[in-house]
Amino acid sequence: MAKVLITTIPFGDKNPFPLELLENSGIEYLINPFNKKITEDQLTEIITDFDVIIAGTEPITEKVLNRATNLKLISRVGIGLDSVDLLAAQKRGIKVSYTPDAPSPAVAELTLGLMLTLLRSVHVSNSQMHQGQWHRFFGKRLEEVTVGIIGVGRIGTGVLKRLKGFGTSKILVNDIVPNSDLDSEIKLEWTSKEKIYKEADIISLHIPLTHLTKNLIRKEHLFSMKPDAIILNTSRGGIINEQDLYEVMQSGHLSGAAIDVFEKEPYVGQLKEIERCLLTAHMGSMSVDCRIRMEIDSTKEAIHFLAGKSLENEVPQEEYDTQRHCEFNS
Amino acid sequence: MAKVLITTIPFGDKNPFPLELLENSGIEYLINPFNKKITEDQLTEIITDFDVIIAGTEPITEKVLNRATNLKLISRVGIGLDSVDLLAAQKRGIKVSYTPDAPSPAVAELTLGLMLTLLRSVHVSNSQMHQGQWHRFFGKRLEEVTVGIIGVGRIGTGVLKRLKGFGTSKILVNDIVPNSDLDSEIKLEWTSKEKIYKEADIISLHIPLTHLTKNLIRKEHLFSMKPDAIILNTSRGGIINEQDLYEVMQSGHLSGAAIDVFEKEPYVGQLKEIERCLLTAHMGSMSVDCRIRMEIDSTKEAIHFLAGKSLENEVPQEEYDTQRHCEFNS
Repeated sequence: MAKVLITTIPFGDKNPFPLELLENSGIEYLINPFNKKITEDQLTEIITDFDVIIAGTEPITEKVLNRATNLKLISRVGIGLDSVDLLAAQKRGIKVSYTPDAPSPAVAELTLGLMLTLLRSVHVSNSQMHQGQWHRFFGKRLEEVTVGIIGVGRIGTGVLKRLKGFGTSKILVNDIVPNSDLDSEIKLEWTSKEKIYKEADIISLHIPLTHLTKNLIRKEHLFSMKPDAIILNTSRGGIINEQDLYEVMQSGHLSGAAIDVFEKEPYVGQLKEIERCLLTAHMGSMSVDCRIRMEIDSTKEAIHFLAGKSLENEVPQEEYDTQRHCEFNS
Repeated sequence: MAKVLITTIPFGDKNPFPLELLENSGIEYLINPFNKKITEDQLTEIITDFDVIIAGTEPITEKVLNRATNLKLISRVGIGLDSVDLLAAQKRGIKVSYTPDAPSPAVAELTLGLMLTLLRSVHVSNSQMHQGQWHRFFGKRLEEVTVGIIGVGRIGTGVLKRLKGFGTSKILVNDIVPNSDLDSEIKLEWTSKEKIYKEADIISLHIPLTHLTKNLIRKEHLFSMKPDAIILNTSRGGIINEQDLYEVMQSGHLSGAAIDVFEKEPYVGQLKEIERCLLTAHMGSMSVDCRIRMEIDSTKEAIHFLAGKSLENEVPQEEYDTQRHCEFNS
C-alpha cells in the first residue's frame, strides 16, 4: 500500500476533501506528527517508508533524501522550491511537482493590504490605540506615490492588476525578462533594481529565493532608498538581510516595512522591537480558497502519480538549472 | 483687521501654504492654543472676537454661538456637519461652508486597507508577532465574499471603484437614493440594510451622522450579522453603538471590526480590550494630499468671504433640513 507523508500543516483543516481523496484511493497517509514546521533531523528520522511527500517549506535536503529510500515524488503545496534540493532529488530519480498558480491571488491581495496599512500607519495606530494612546498619523495615497515592483511573475502581475483601481500613475518594474504584454494594460516603466531602490516610495518583492536573490537587499541598498520609503517582502525570507533591515530601521531610516517571510520560521528575531515594522506569520497564501486549491492540487498530483499517470505540474527544467548554479543552501 | 480662529489641528503642518494665504491677505489668525480637540467650554471662552472659524469636528453649539458675536462664517475642514448646530448658525446669519470632495479618496483608500487587514487578520498577527508569538491565520479574499456598502455617496462610490480590481462579484448596496449611474460600471444589488446585515461578509458604513443614523447599528443588528462577518466604520462615531459592539464582540460574535471614528475622541473606551478589533485614531482623511487640499479649500473660502466674494462650497439647504428634523445632539 502506498504511503504519503503530509508535512505541511494545517492540512485538510478547512476542507477535508484532499484527505478523502487519499482515503478513497486506498492511500495511507501521515500528517506531520510534530505539529510544527518539521526540521531536517525530524524529517530524516521519519521519511524512510514513504513513497510521496506532500510538502510545505521544510528542508528536503540531500541528508533527508539519503534516508528516503522509497521516495518517488515530492508534491509541493505551494510555489517556492528553495526548500527542496532539486538536483539531489533528480539524481535519485525523485520527481518534484508544485502548485504554481494557486497561491498567487492570495499573496497579491495580502500585499495590497500591507501596502495600504504601511502607507497610513494603521498598524502603529492600532497598537497605540490598544494601549490607550491617541495619535493621528498622516499618510499617503497610492495615487501620489511611486511604486516599485521587483519580480513581475504571477504574483507581481496580480499586485499590478489590483493597483489599477487606486490610480497609481508611476510604477517602476524590474524582472529578468520584462513582460511586454502587461504594458498595454498598465503604464509601466521597466528599469533597474537600483533605480527602484532610489526612486520608489513603495518597494515590493515578488521573486523566488535562489543563490542570486539570497541577501539581495543589504544595508547599502536599504540606505539607498528614500528615508520615508516602505519595503515589503511577501516572497521568501532571506532576500532582505534581516539583521541589516533591523539596523537600518533602528537608525530611523525607512518609514515602514512589512515582512511576512523570514529566514527561520517561526520567527523570533529582533524586528519585533520596531513598532513601524509590520510583521505577519507567513500568511501570504493563507486564504481559505487558495489554500484548499493548493491542497487539492498537490494531493491530486500524488494520487495521479501513484496510479501511474503523468504529472500535471512537474517542476520545469529551469528551476533545476537555477539551483545548478549554486550550492544548495538550506 | 479680520480675525480667523483655526480650531482643527495639525494645520499648515505639512504645507504652510494656507497660512501664507492668510498672511498675504492681511488676516490675523490663531491656531488652536489647547493643542488638542477643543471642548465646547474652551471654544465658548475664546470665540468672542473672531470673524471666521476654520473648523474641525469640535462642537459648535448654540452655547458657543451665543458668545460668537463677531462670527460670520464657519468654514469646515472636511465634510461632516454633525458637530455644527446649523440651525443656530442660520438664525444668527452665520454662513457655513465645507470641503465635501477633498477627503473622499483618502477615506475610501483607508477603508480598503482596513478591509484587507481584517480579512487576513494582519492586525492580530502583527500584534502577536511583536510579542514573539507565531500563529498563522486563515483568511478570505475579496473575490469570495459578499460586500455590503451602506451609504453610496462620494466615499462609498470610491470604495466600490477600488474594489473592482479585486474581482468582488457580490456587492450589496444601500442608500436613501440609489445611484443608478453606478450600475453600468459595477454590478450592484440595491437592497435593504437588513439584508446587508444578514448576508454580507463585510459591512462598511459611509453615511453622515444625523438623528436618523445615530445608534443605527445596535446589539440586535450586530447579532443579525453572520458570526464571522466583519464591520467597518470610517464615517462617524455613534453610528454603531460602541457599548453594544463591545459586548457583541466579547461574546465571540463577528470575526473582526475596524473602527476609525468614536463617539468621544480621543477614544478611551473598552474596545481596546478586543484584539480582533482594529482601532485607528480618526485617520480617514489624514493623507497628506487630501489634508492639504482640505486646508487650502477651507482657507480660500474664508479669504473669499472676508473679501466680500460669494462662497464656493456653501453647505446646501438639505443639510439644514436634516438637522431641522431633530434636536441637535452634540
